Amino acid sequence: MQAIVQTEEKNTASLELQEVPTPQLQPGEVLVEVKAAGINRADLLQSQGNYPPPPGASEIFGLECAGIIVDAGDTDRQVGEEVACLLSGGAYAEYVAVPAGQLMPIPAGYSFVEAASIVEVACTVWSNIGMLAGLKKGDTFLIHGGAGGIGTFAIQMGKALGATVAVTAGSAEKLATCKELGADILINYREEDFAEVLKNKANVILDIIGAKYLGQNVKAMAPDGHMVVIGFQGGIKGELNLGLLLAKRGTISATALRSREVADKARIVKSTVENIWPLLEDGTISHHIDHTLPLAEAGAALMKLEEGSVTGKLVLEV
Amino acid sequence: MQAIVQTEEKNTASLELQEVPTPQLQPGEVLVEVKAAGINRADLLQSQGNYPPPPGASEIFGLECAGIIVDAGDTDRQVGEEVACLLSGGAYAEYVAVPAGQLMPIPAGYSFVEAASIVEVACTVWSNIGMLAGLKKGDTFLIHGGAGGIGTFAIQMGKALGATVAVTAGSAEKLATCKELGADILINYREEDFAEVLKNKANVILDIIGAKYLGQNVKAMAPDGHMVVIGFQGGIKGELNLGLLLAKRGTISATALRSREVADKARIVKSTVENIWPLLEDGTISHHIDHTLPLAEAGAALMKLEEGSVTGKLVLEV
Repeated sequence: MQAIVQTEEKNTASLELQEVPTPQLQPGEVLVEVKAAGINRADLLQSQGNYPPPPGASEIFGLECAGIIVDAGDTDRQVGEEVACLLSGGAYAEYVAVPAGQLMPIPAGYSFVEAASIVEVACTVWSNIGMLAGLKKGDTFLIHGGAGGIGTFAIQMGKALGATVAVTAGSAEKLATCKELGADILINYREEDFAEVLKNKANVILDIIGAKYLGQNVKAMAPDGHMVVIGFQGGIKGELNLGLLLAKRGTISATALRSREVADKARIVKSTVENIWPLLEDGTISHHIDHTLPLAEAGAALMKLEEGSVTGKLVLEV
Repeated sequence: MQAIVQTEEKNTASLELQEVPTPQLQPGEVLVEVKAAGINRADLLQSQGNYPPPPGASEIFGLECAGIIVDAGDTDRQVGEEVACLLSGGAYAEYVAVPAGQLMPIPAGYSFVEAASIVEVACTVWSNIGMLAGLKKGDTFLIHGGAGGIGTFAIQMGKALGATVAVTAGSAEKLATCKELGADILINYREEDFAEVLKNKANVILDIIGAKYLGQNVKAMAPDGHMVVIGFQGGIKGELNLGLLLAKRGTISATALRSREVADKARIVKSTVENIWPLLEDGTISHHIDHTLPLAEAGAALMKLEEGSVTGKLVLEV
């Protein structure tokens, strides 16, 4: 099959289409013909040598796709089924092997491209905010980087769950995007200290900044609050004031999706389909695709992502 | 009524028995005639000015007691009922007002003194390890300060839940006590680094040290591990490596019992009675009372606690 291969370590520009062996199915896996593959910032990090695949995962890039089952292996799935797939790698290719528990239906009314664009963000945000932190009606939900891919999804999900949504972003334009999606409290981090604005008020915090915001996040946290760190744009080592955390009876989690075991991913995929798919299908949560590119241009797509000029999702069409 | 009053700020020696007004019942409270009041390290901290009562709580010391209901107020409890009580203050007295949700039955076979000695530790350990961290069969459970009041209870509870129990303590004698209670892995922190012994193995950690152990605790944490900090014998501010925490998909909570709202305390008390009382009644979890003193000697009792010569619980008899 054809797949994207990185020919030079840590060089994003060296991604090119090559002939490679079609994946062999392991027990419990199906073979999916990839129609579209979503591009994630994690792929860019991987191309720079900073996010190696977990043990046992495909060396091929790509954490999400949509396509058609062409070999059901030993599972009870059907050849010809159209599916969206959560992957630990392998989407930048014509075919990918997928554990059956990581298959989702295509949301009704969604194209392959649209489905491939939503899997990773939906599973990430729901598993952290719905399943782990238990965001509920009436909560105040603080989202850092509200205008990004994770942020725009999280705003809409937060509103759907009945939360008051607060966001941080770095420009009036980005905050206007957040407001359009339903955000209630808009904080320009270049002008205001979010910890002062939200002091003791944030029941749930979704954080992609890490160390730089650790102290302020604990200040912003409400009693019994829960913050979940899923990114480190502001570094990994920070000072934690456990005394203040205890005064809030607060909880801090840091999580990732890719490293989870197959059974754990299946649990998350199932809950995400149950809770989030209806919100995609009725339009409560919308998605924004910047544009699509052919598979062969994966390297160019990642470099575009690095430039920072992309405002929605990039998707590869196969 | 007679109660212990601190006559000089921050002076533990200035605790003395005085005549004070009997508490007035608020809606939902009962009046309990105190027969025995447990002594906690938190009382010592309060006498040193370091642990002020939360807003609305009694200024009188004492977080747990056992006694008899003498006024049921507007509740459906009965005058004459023997009860154990979780309090946010007020136990060092002849009478105390108690929200009905914080009343527990006296465990079958327990005296007032025994019941008064077990309330705070049972609610603390169960709420954190059972309810919050969800310790389960097969888990490895790391307890710091295994030979202390919290530790000795936690060891027995951990074994009852089917966990492998690891403890740290500072002497062979203390570790022998832990072993007698069922601890499986004994770590003398003066001789070994617990983070090396338990690297990536501890599913649940109960910590009373705080900052000093923060980095090592994250190292010791297993994938999807949960550490709960309930004390700061090693300081409050420490460096947290969020990258390592994320690699474990780990969670850190810091909690306290006293500051919780009445409804939250009622939830904890109910679950503790359901899950822990049977283990007290069948002897699975035993208690160790160092000795009892008359109420008037509360100050002397706290000073004894400060000296560090006490190996079990001190209880005041009223």
